[in-house]
Amino acid sequence: MYGALEGIRVTDLGHVLAAPTCTMILADLGAEVIKVEPPKGDDSRFFGPFIKEKEGQGEQSGYYISINRNKKSICVDLKEPEGKEILRKLIRVSDVLVENYRPGTLKKLGFPYEEIRKINPGIIYCSISGFGHNTLPEFARKPAYDMVAQAYSGLMSITGPEGGDPVRVGTSVGDLVAGHQAAIGILSALWHRQKTGVGQHVDISMVDGLIYMLENAIVRYTTTGEIPTPLGTAHPTITPFQSFKTKDHWIITPIGNDKLWHSYCEAIGRTDLINHPKFKTNHLRTVNRAELITILQEVMKTKSTKEWIEIFEKNHLPYSPLNTVDKVINDPNTKYRKMVTEIEQPNIGKVKIIGTPFKLSETPGTVSGHAPLLGENTNEVLNTLLNYSQEQITNLKKKNIIK
Amino acid sequence: MYGALEGIRVTDLGHVLAAPTCTMILADLGAEVIKVEPPKGDDSRFFGPFIKEKEGQGEQSGYYISINRNKKSICVDLKEPEGKEILRKLIRVSDVLVENYRPGTLKKLGFPYEEIRKINPGIIYCSISGFGHNTLPEFARKPAYDMVAQAYSGLMSITGPEGGDPVRVGTSVGDLVAGHQAAIGILSALWHRQKTGVGQHVDISMVDGLIYMLENAIVRYTTTGEIPTPLGTAHPTITPFQSFKTKDHWIITPIGNDKLWHSYCEAIGRTDLINHPKFKTNHLRTVNRAELITILQEVMKTKSTKEWIEIFEKNHLPYSPLNTVDKVINDPNTKYRKMVTEIEQPNIGKVKIIGTPFKLSETPGTVSGHAPLLGENTNEVLNTLLNYSQEQITNLKKKNIIK
Repeated sequence: MYGALEGIRVTDLGHVLAAPTCTMILADLGAEVIKVEPPKGDDSRFFGPFIKEKEGQGEQSGYYISINRNKKSICVDLKEPEGKEILRKLIRVSDVLVENYRPGTLKKLGFPYEEIRKINPGIIYCSISGFGHNTLPEFARKPAYDMVAQAYSGLMSITGPEGGDPVRVGTSVGDLVAGHQAAIGILSALWHRQKTGVGQHVDISMVDGLIYMLENAIVRYTTTGEIPTPLGTAHPTITPFQSFKTKDHWIITPIGNDKLWHSYCEAIGRTDLINHPKFKTNHLRTVNRAELITILQEVMKTKSTKEWIEIFEKNHLPYSPLNTVDKVINDPNTKYRKMVTEIEQPNIGKVKIIGTPFKLSETPGTVSGHAPLLGENTNEVLNTLLNYSQEQITNLKKKNIIK
Repeated sequence: MYGALEGIRVTDLGHVLAAPTCTMILADLGAEVIKVEPPKGDDSRFFGPFIKEKEGQGEQSGYYISINRNKKSICVDLKEPEGKEILRKLIRVSDVLVENYRPGTLKKLGFPYEEIRKINPGIIYCSISGFGHNTLPEFARKPAYDMVAQAYSGLMSITGPEGGDPVRVGTSVGDLVAGHQAAIGILSALWHRQKTGVGQHVDISMVDGLIYMLENAIVRYTTTGEIPTPLGTAHPTITPFQSFKTKDHWIITPIGNDKLWHSYCEAIGRTDLINHPKFKTNHLRTVNRAELITILQEVMKTKSTKEWIEIFEKNHLPYSPLNTVDKVINDPNTKYRKMVTEIEQPNIGKVKIIGTPFKLSETPGTVSGHAPLLGENTNEVLNTLLNYSQEQITNLKKKNIIK
C-alpha cells in the first residue's frame, strides 16, 4: 500500500519506547524505517510479555513486536570502526536520523550533530531525551525514564484520587507523547527542508512534552495562584462530569452543560433536582459537588451499567462504560476502525497488536509488516542500499561487527 | 521569526480543545491559523480561569488564551448564506481545514467533504471526533467528551490506585493526543500533496488516539489473556519503579535494572538487600513486590525528599520529586527550555502560559502572538485575503453576519 511518507528514509537508533514510538508513527504512514540495533538487540526485546515460537525453544517479546512492526532491523556494533562506517553510509542516504540515547552518548560514539551534518547537510536529526539536549548541563545528563517525566512535569501531581496517593498514568505517556512530538517536529523540518534544502536538529524532551499536556493547569495556577490537585475522575469546573458506581460496575457521565443536566435528571428520574436552588447551574453544582455526588451516587447504584447505557442511549446523553482492555479489543467500533490488528510474525504466526489511528482517505496509515527479527535486514540493506559486496558482508559477520 | 510551516494556511473551525490543540501545534510551528468563530465565540471563551481586563469591566478566559495564542480570529455566522460564502472563499485559499464538530454537523451547514473538495481539490480536510467519521453509524453520532474517550478506550481502566476506584488522567489527554495525531496526519497529507497535488480527508478519532497510547496493554492481554489493571504508580514488570513517601513528601525511584538496584541499595544503606534471595533479580523483586515495598517504604520515610535527592544525585541514580505545578513553573529546566512563557494579551497585559516543545534548531517553534479577541482579524482577513471591500464588510457587520 502506498503511504503518505513513502520515499522518506529514516535511520532509527532508538531503543525501548520514545524514539521507537516516533518511528512507528512514521512507518505506519509509509516511511522506510531502518532500525539499527546493537549486537544484543534493542533492550525491549527482553521485555515481556513473551510469545513462544512455533518450533524450536525460542520466544519473542510482544512488547518489541507491538511497537516495531513495519520496520527493518540491521544489527551493527557501533563501537567498532567498521560499524561506524556503516552508520556513516546510512546517514548519507537517509532523510531523518532519530535517537533517544542519553545526551552525549552519540557524540561519544563519534557522531556529534556537527559530524552528522557534515556527512549529510540536509538530514533531519531528531533526539529525544528526558530534559532536552539544549538545557543546563546538570539536567541534560540526568537519567530519565517515563516515570521521571510523569513526576517531574507535574502530570502526576494532578492525577489520582482526591486527597489520595499519587498515581501514574497507566501507560508510558512520557515516552509516547514525546514520540508524537518528535514525529511532528521531523515532518515540519522536512517541510522546511523541501523549500530550503536545509536540515536541522529537532531537540525533543519528555518533560517538555508532558508540560505541554498540562493544558489549563498552568494558566489556572498563574492566574489564580491555586495549585491544581488530583480529583479522581471529576472535572475541576464541570459537574457531574465523572464516574459513578452502578449495581455491577461503573458508568461515566460527562454532563457538560445545563441542557444536558435537564435531560440527565429526567433520564434518571430525578426531575426534582433540575431547578433545585443548590444544583440548577453548573456553577452551583460544582460548588455543591460533594452533596450532589452523594445524591447521584445513590441513584446510579440502583441499576446495572447495561441498564443505564440503554437509558442514556434512548435520551441521547453522553456516557461511557469503564471499558477494560478485553472489552476495547472486542468493541465493534475498535473492529470497524481496525484499531486492533493482526500481523503475521515470523516463527510465531498471527499476533494481535495495536492498529494505527492515522486514517487518511487517499494514503491510509497501515500495519502491514511484521516486527523484524534481530538483523533480519542487515544483508539486504548493506548490499542493496549501501553497496557492500557479499564478500564484505561475510567478512563483517565473521568479525562480529554485524549480525 | 520564521517558522518551519510558514506559508501554510489553516482554516480552523474547531472549538474547545481537540481541534484547537491541533491548530496550536501548527501555529507554534509557523502556520497561519485563521480561527472561524460563531457570533457567540468559541465555547471555551466561557471556561475559567477568567482574567480581569485592565480597564472596563470585561474579563477573558485563561483557558481560551492558553490554547489559542498565535492564531487569528474571524467571527462569522455560518448559518447565513453570506457567512457560508465567506467560508467557501476561505476554503479556496487554504491548505488545511480542521474541525471537531460532531460528525454530520458540517454537512448540515452545507459543507460535506465532497463539497469542500469541489471548492479546493488540494485541501487537506481534517476532522476530529469521538469515534471517527468513518465508523458504524451508531458510533459516529455518539456525543463524546474527553472523559468518554478516556473511559471508552480502556486508558481509565489501567490508571488509578491498585484495587481502588478509577481515576481520570488529570488533563484532557483524549483531546490533546487526538490534536497531536491530527497534526501528524495533516503534515503527512501535505507531504503527499506536494508530490501529487492530491488533497484528502484525515479522519482522527479520540478513542482511536488513546487506544494507540495503550502501549503494551493490548499485546499483554492478547498474548496472556490477563486483563491489565491499575497499579498506582508501580510498573507492571519492573520493581522498585514507583513513588515512596518520604519524611515530608514523595520521591519517585525508577530502578530499571540490576545494576541500578545495586547502586540504589548502597545509596539507601541497605546493601543486605542486594543479593537477598527474594530480591536479587528484577523478576524476583516483582514477584515479591509487596514484601519489598514494605521494607523500602520504611527506609524512604526516614529522610526528607530533599535529603534523598542529594543522595541520589551523588550516586547518579534516576529519581524525581513529585512536582506540583508551582514547582514546575519555577524549575530551572522549565525556564531554560521556555516551557512556560509570557505573552502580551490585549487589555490584560502579560499572561503566563505554556511554551512550545518543538525545539527546532533552524526554525524553532515560537509563542509570539497573543490569543485573538473575538473577531479581531475579521476585517483584515476579509479585506486583504478574501478581497471584500470595506463597504461590503460594513454591510455584513450591520446584518450581524460578521463581527
